[in-house]
Amino acid sequence: MKRVERIGVSLDKKLLSMFDELISKQGYQSRSEAICDLIRQQLSSKRLSNPKAKAVAAVCLVYDHHSTKLMEKLTSLQHSHILQTISSIHVHLSEHDCLEVVVLRGRVGEINKVAENIISLKGVKLGRINLIATEQG
Amino acid sequence: MKRVERIGVSLDKKLLSMFDELISKQGYQSRSEAICDLIRQQLSSKRLSNPKAKAVAAVCLVYDHHSTKLMEKLTSLQHSHILQTISSIHVHLSEHDCLEVVVLRGRVGEINKVAENIISLKGVKLGRINLIATEQG
Amino acid sequence: MKRVERIGVSLDKKLLSMFDELISKQGYQSRSEAICDLIRQQLSSKRLSNPKAKAVAAVCLVYDHHSTKLMEKLTSLQHSHILQTISSIHVHLSEHDCLEVVVLRGRVGEINKVAENIISLKGVKLGRINLIATEQG
Amino acid sequence: MKRVERIGVSLDKKLLSMFDELISKQGYQSRSEAICDLIRQQLSSKRLSNPKAKAVAAVCLVYDHHSTKLMEKLTSLQHSHILQTISSIHVHLSEHDCLEVVVLRGRVGEINKVAENIISLKGVKLGRINLIATEQG
Repeated sequence: MKRVERIGVSLDKKLLSMFDELISKQGYQSRSEAICDLIRQQLSSKRLSNPKAKAVAAVCLVYDHHSTKLMEKLTSLQHSHILQTISSIHVHLSEHDCLEVVVLRGRVGEINKVAENIISLKGVKLGRINLIATEQG
Repeated sequence: MKRVERIGVSLDKKLLSMFDELISKQGYQSRSEAICDLIRQQLSSKRLSNPKAKAVAAVCLVYDHHSTKLMEKLTSLQHSHILQTISSIHVHLSEHDCLEVVVLRGRVGEINKVAENIISLKGVKLGRINLIATEQG
Repeated sequence: MKRVERIGVSLDKKLLSMFDELISKQGYQSRSEAICDLIRQQLSSKRLSNPKAKAVAAVCLVYDHHSTKLMEKLTSLQHSHILQTISSIHVHLSEHDCLEVVVLRGRVGEINKVAENIISLKGVKLGRINLIATEQG
Repeated sequence: MKRVERIGVSLDKKLLSMFDELISKQGYQSRSEAICDLIRQQLSSKRLSNPKAKAVAAVCLVYDHHSTKLMEKLTSLQHSHILQTISSIHVHLSEHDCLEVVVLRGRVGEINKVAENIISLKGVKLGRINLIATEQG
């Protein structure tokens, strides 16, 4: 069964040549791939505005590992939300600071809540959430 | 002289049907228009990462018009950057608050600097900068 | 009645000196103002995640004024949502392109819908929505 | 040597009570921590606008692991930029899709370039870059 469809797209010539230049710099090998990526990004960011959409998220935390009991709190917080936490990376940044990347899975609204709980822990200096919608429904 | 070019794009069928659904909700009348808009957004946001790129910006400010001398300061700040300020809208939001939308034109770096000066004025409660790259070079 | 309260905040010395340097560059005349602005931004962006929150928005559009009937469509679209459209600015960018900044007022969800309808009009090349939450409830 | 300094901040009472409500929901145990976090975010996002600033980044990729040779390409791309790649997480999302979180370290400009190279690989469906400035200079 054919899963790929070919469509025709009309573009202004100047716009096309600027697009070709951009995607060649980015490393794309075909316009179709670059256009599909734009479309997927658009769909993904639309879905993320729905708090009930399924998503994965990478929560990046910079924290001071000298903070008393922070690591235990982080670990227990991850376990108390065990269904959502998939995995984590721990990286030493400096004498004081660590980077922890926690991968969560769940609904957009729930992920944001867990992530806020983690970011507001004492000792966590910086936190950012990166959400990607996974469901195509 | 033909200014429009027609290209073929291969997409996964499921991705295409989700895209069709989205752009129909948004009000697009053809896939080509929707795809061109995605491409223009991408090019515009790339250009904005260059502080020397030409751009226009709408700076939105919420401020308390009871703040002594704020309006004079805003006006004089706009005139001192006269080459960049094109126009502004003034809207009453409540008994205390006004919205002022100032349209600036210039290089990305300069616009950000002027906008920060405006936003940091005493009495300005909230400020946001919306940049759009204008140059296609 | 006293409307202002004074609180004490403990900060790392190095963090404080970096903050002082930043806000002095931005033009702030006191730490209190700069900190209040950070807090207002945070509250405003939280409220914007609620589709029912009241907001004002500046929708920036770049469009080709040669596009047949675009201007009439824009005008009629603005009038059909008359309760939400407050004002607009029109600026000539080049021989072909205009910038229109349309100020809308309403609920976040409704504003986004109207803005998408405007941005998807044929002839509109670029569009960006800048939302500011107005309600403090 | 005292590393912490205590400053006084004047706020509108209503603003303060809304802030207190927000940070209590987020899980903060003191205003000082919440305000320090706001300040760190602000400083970090300012530094990220400088392409030469030092940063760490979590690049999140959703890709089809059936894509011929994608995994080898990803691995070799990571090794060719060995100084910047610290670690990566691999998560199975569905029959077809994997999530890979690659942690990179380097200058903002370099990280963005490597990340674009990865995201533009054939088979990579979605990619997002999450940058955090690490240097305090």
